Amino acid sequence: MTLNSLSFHESREIDVIPMGRIAIDFNSNEIFRPMEETNTFTKYIGGSPANIAVGMARLGKKVGFIGCISDDQFGRYALNYFTNEGIDTSNIAVDKSGAPIGLAFTEIKSETESSILMYRDNVADLKISPEYISEEYIKNAKVILISGTALSKAPSREACFVAMEYAKKHNTLIVFDIDYRPYSWKSLKEVSVYYSMAARMSNMIIGSREEFDLMEALVCPESKSDSVSANTWFAYNAEILVIKHGKEGSNVYTKNGDVFKVRAFPVKLLKSFGGGDAYASALLYGLMEGWELEKSLEFASASAAMLVASHSCSAAMPTAHEIQQFILDKKDQNLDIVTQY
Amino acid sequence: MTLNSLSFHESREIDVIPMGRIAIDFNSNEIFRPMEETNTFTKYIGGSPANIAVGMARLGKKVGFIGCISDDQFGRYALNYFTNEGIDTSNIAVDKSGAPIGLAFTEIKSETESSILMYRDNVADLKISPEYISEEYIKNAKVILISGTALSKAPSREACFVAMEYAKKHNTLIVFDIDYRPYSWKSLKEVSVYYSMAARMSNMIIGSREEFDLMEALVCPESKSDSVSANTWFAYNAEILVIKHGKEGSNVYTKNGDVFKVRAFPVKLLKSFGGGDAYASALLYGLMEGWELEKSLEFASASAAMLVASHSCSAAMPTAHEIQQFILDKKDQNLDIVTQY
Amino acid sequence: MTLNSLSFHESREIDVIPMGRIAIDFNSNEIFRPMEETNTFTKYIGGSPANIAVGMARLGKKVGFIGCISDDQFGRYALNYFTNEGIDTSNIAVDKSGAPIGLAFTEIKSETESSILMYRDNVADLKISPEYISEEYIKNAKVILISGTALSKAPSREACFVAMEYAKKHNTLIVFDIDYRPYSWKSLKEVSVYYSMAARMSNMIIGSREEFDLMEALVCPESKSDSVSANTWFAYNAEILVIKHGKEGSNVYTKNGDVFKVRAFPVKLLKSFGGGDAYASALLYGLMEGWELEKSLEFASASAAMLVASHSCSAAMPTAHEIQQFILDKKDQNLDIVTQY
Amino acid sequence: MTLNSLSFHESREIDVIPMGRIAIDFNSNEIFRPMEETNTFTKYIGGSPANIAVGMARLGKKVGFIGCISDDQFGRYALNYFTNEGIDTSNIAVDKSGAPIGLAFTEIKSETESSILMYRDNVADLKISPEYISEEYIKNAKVILISGTALSKAPSREACFVAMEYAKKHNTLIVFDIDYRPYSWKSLKEVSVYYSMAARMSNMIIGSREEFDLMEALVCPESKSDSVSANTWFAYNAEILVIKHGKEGSNVYTKNGDVFKVRAFPVKLLKSFGGGDAYASALLYGLMEGWELEKSLEFASASAAMLVASHSCSAAMPTAHEIQQFILDKKDQNLDIVTQY
Repeated sequence: MTLNSLSFHESREIDVIPMGRIAIDFNSNEIFRPMEETNTFTKYIGGSPANIAVGMARLGKKVGFIGCISDDQFGRYALNYFTNEGIDTSNIAVDKSGAPIGLAFTEIKSETESSILMYRDNVADLKISPEYISEEYIKNAKVILISGTALSKAPSREACFVAMEYAKKHNTLIVFDIDYRPYSWKSLKEVSVYYSMAARMSNMIIGSREEFDLMEALVCPESKSDSVSANTWFAYNAEILVIKHGKEGSNVYTKNGDVFKVRAFPVKLLKSFGGGDAYASALLYGLMEGWELEKSLEFASASAAMLVASHSCSAAMPTAHEIQQFILDKKDQNLDIVTQY
Repeated sequence: MTLNSLSFHESREIDVIPMGRIAIDFNSNEIFRPMEETNTFTKYIGGSPANIAVGMARLGKKVGFIGCISDDQFGRYALNYFTNEGIDTSNIAVDKSGAPIGLAFTEIKSETESSILMYRDNVADLKISPEYISEEYIKNAKVILISGTALSKAPSREACFVAMEYAKKHNTLIVFDIDYRPYSWKSLKEVSVYYSMAARMSNMIIGSREEFDLMEALVCPESKSDSVSANTWFAYNAEILVIKHGKEGSNVYTKNGDVFKVRAFPVKLLKSFGGGDAYASALLYGLMEGWELEKSLEFASASAAMLVASHSCSAAMPTAHEIQQFILDKKDQNLDIVTQY
Repeated sequence: MTLNSLSFHESREIDVIPMGRIAIDFNSNEIFRPMEETNTFTKYIGGSPANIAVGMARLGKKVGFIGCISDDQFGRYALNYFTNEGIDTSNIAVDKSGAPIGLAFTEIKSETESSILMYRDNVADLKISPEYISEEYIKNAKVILISGTALSKAPSREACFVAMEYAKKHNTLIVFDIDYRPYSWKSLKEVSVYYSMAARMSNMIIGSREEFDLMEALVCPESKSDSVSANTWFAYNAEILVIKHGKEGSNVYTKNGDVFKVRAFPVKLLKSFGGGDAYASALLYGLMEGWELEKSLEFASASAAMLVASHSCSAAMPTAHEIQQFILDKKDQNLDIVTQY
Repeated sequence: MTLNSLSFHESREIDVIPMGRIAIDFNSNEIFRPMEETNTFTKYIGGSPANIAVGMARLGKKVGFIGCISDDQFGRYALNYFTNEGIDTSNIAVDKSGAPIGLAFTEIKSETESSILMYRDNVADLKISPEYISEEYIKNAKVILISGTALSKAPSREACFVAMEYAKKHNTLIVFDIDYRPYSWKSLKEVSVYYSMAARMSNMIIGSREEFDLMEALVCPESKSDSVSANTWFAYNAEILVIKHGKEGSNVYTKNGDVFKVRAFPVKLLKSFGGGDAYASALLYGLMEGWELEKSLEFASASAAMLVASHSCSAAMPTAHEIQQFILDKKDQNLDIVTQY
């Protein structure tokens, strides 16, 4: 039996506070064609930490959020959406300088080819400033989850580090979702510098192999190996590392030496994004429920599979019951989702 | 009989070159509700000078364009659209710095209440630089039409003035469509400075009463009268002034002393924007055809009426035949559209 | 007899309002060596329009100023200096954003080789905004003198155009001192655009042949001829053109057809700058005194000669009596300073 | 006997690499008056890490430097000066974007009242980028000394963190000289975030009590006590903390529990700055020589006293022999400079 190595402050009011961007996704209704030829779009809440917030709220967790939205119809839409999902919006700032909320227009050319056209100039989410961060809010939470994109630019970057300082001070666990997006960053060395600073402070780190390589470019540039990554960050505060390898699934390391291989449930893919956010929220849910790591990982993989088969990244987030039902439905296929090494 | 006072270089290859922004309009499919509650959007080409380009191409004119688009799916969509409409795209730059094309999300709350949510941060259209302007291109055109929004920021501002210098040098007529939008401008005095510079160089000026007031804030701040405006700008290069008064219609002045009142055709309004672009393109068409001003104005008013009754600002631009048919259909109502004073 | 072609509003309180930068010059005390090897510097007021202000104050004229200085010791030094010279400082703004006053470190390598090391980043003088310009102040002056460098960047650029609009409205004469400096400008086309706009509004234009070429790059790029320049700008508001040809002296054109060649008085040169500011102030003084143009030009040339032989550009500005004495002293040399063609 | 707790890689080629700004000081020759009334200035090399470099070179150490200078006469002056002092300039970048070297005009109103007028807009020193940092150079040094001002803005901030990552990787000791200057920083929380990141990585930290308070504003805001500071940073990599208390002298803590009080030698003050840089270089010299901490601190205090009695911050840096002579001269006064608690 593998015990899950994170220990949560059970008495705290808020389960998790994702921190970072809330965006609007415009998903084209006509799929399997280039965006030059699509005509209509449906709007959804998007942005990795926002998706995770919705994901965890659907799973019944008490979810807060630290972020910044635009002072317009889209910003109000986002607030309403969160409120309806039961997410606490008391720590979401409204930018008064006219900064817009970020947009993501998705293009699904085929089952495997998809891309995103981003509107991220002067976005509201990167306007959140250190002064806005409430020490009290973070002190009342079990976990804060930092999205790496929030580190890409001042003042959001410093706001994240302030939040992490408060989290360390009050033993709020830090989950670092590397979530690398090239826009806003000025250089790859800048990425390495701030990602490694965040990683040193974090209790759990989630990212793709490529994201770990970026992060480790200064510290251990030659490695590109999951076990070296694990050793590197376990030397600081990390307890669990999740390293994703695309279609190959993910490898999960714990500080006490366990290693798991997690495979994807076979589903008919609609799009190639959104799965990671479902995975993160379901994994964190499992750990918070006190489940063993194996069980949590299977649950995470199931949620990810359900997500990539649907049209949105937020509205399609499943409930715990739906995920369990999905796993039951797949049981007879004798799938080998999680293996311990 | 009132002769139209502009004389066009008949031998020139291109009829008109609008200069300024090409944008993408996202019109909500669900109307008569706030944007917080709309779910799907249909995309169209937008931006006042782009709409005018489409309008004049539909009317059979040879249309060029000077502008700058994004190097992405939306930019290519715009180029394809123009090409399909028969508009020459040889002088449309493609920005290589990652600037996005502007977006306009329309919100139609009721027949009279509508608003536009703009994405104009770092937009490609304002990136056009003086170095890009081709003297030869302008020399080959009868008319360039400058959209005032293109004056709102460097380097597009200077690019416009360079284009106007070339136009003056080669006797290409300049139409100035004031087209004021508050974003991008830094102060109202800045607006007055550059609008009056452009107005002094222009042969025809089109704008609302409010736009003329803004433009004249330094020169004759107290006036706010159409006849003072006419005297002010006729002292320079202007030959025709079109001053719009919202639902009251527009007043049109010519340097040789004629004054016309133009009323709107009664139609069931769908939205309150786009009519001005149809008006400008149809009026310019009439003048280029050598029609008398009265006839041209009635034609312009008809095109505007057709536009405000439809869902888009570009795709709905009518052909000459359609406008004539619309006028014929209204004939029995004994409407008094154009009156000379 | 050639009458001077400018007519001044004799009743107005202020003779001249230069507009543009006030800077601090640091002139190296050790001369004829590269700046890498100089150790001590003496500080003076500098900046072309500031020098002209001091020049005209020394000549007994009532001088105002429109500009912006830093809120620090150097800014206060400049204000004190102006006050002591009798210059009205009521329209000099004090920047509150922390912008520094510009600095110019001079390097005199030899009698003919000298250079200036500039500190112009974020300078206070370019922070003057359109809102600061007082219509009343300009209305009370005979002449405003615009330094071309003040056109190089917003908001100073727009402030100048607002001042020129007010000047035109109230028949205050506009002298345009092209005064081109490459820093702050973004492109040569930008220079041409704004210089030609300013030139069209001006009653007198002063500049070197190279500066006229820059200004005319759009309007008549091929010319580079003084008589073409004269014809170009006399078509608008200009009455007098002063075109400088370095050591060859200057050519002066008037709208009524007179042409003068002005040579330099022979003196032992100490530095190669500052002469132009002395020339401009002495010429304007002569014209304001109602002198014929010939006499004014000889006076201007004398003042310029005195300046280039001294260590500073402001403190060394001569009085009218000193200039007349200088001319008398040179009389026996039978010099031929001003020739009419 | 107190052993000094830092251990240096004796075999390494370079003793110390200060990193940060090189500036030019303009010290007024006329003292004891406001700068509005000073006329001449003498120029010197300045900037805290540059002064320390000169200080250690004078003490016979092998000194490198990581920084960025302007591509002009002042930049070349700085390079020449360093070369003449025997400092290795191979890792000093020359900015090609036109950024100026920083200037500091000193104003000495009285023995106790002095101020500095800074020119730091767009300065070259903050342009050093992560890409410029040589891992090899840092690997060959015993110590790098990071000036806190170099953390105030990108890309210099990231360049410093890259240098610190390389230092940690190769066991090059890191000395962090907090050196807080308000300009360039955007907020006090930003200061705390980056100062505490740097402090966690550093082996020795030097700053005033106010600087430690700033740095600890997130971590232990209420403390403001030297022993709390010591405990805070000894929990990471720090071995020695120097906390300055102005005229009261400084308190020095070591990780193994020693605490020293260091007083100032009595001298006739000429100016109130520069002493700290002499102190830092002499202290580091003593430690590198293998001296006990007491002896090193007395030596540091002596060097500081010599500096504040002279006109410059770099040219006046003493040799080891001069410092020893100064201490001998003061011996008969029975001064109690260093006391252990």
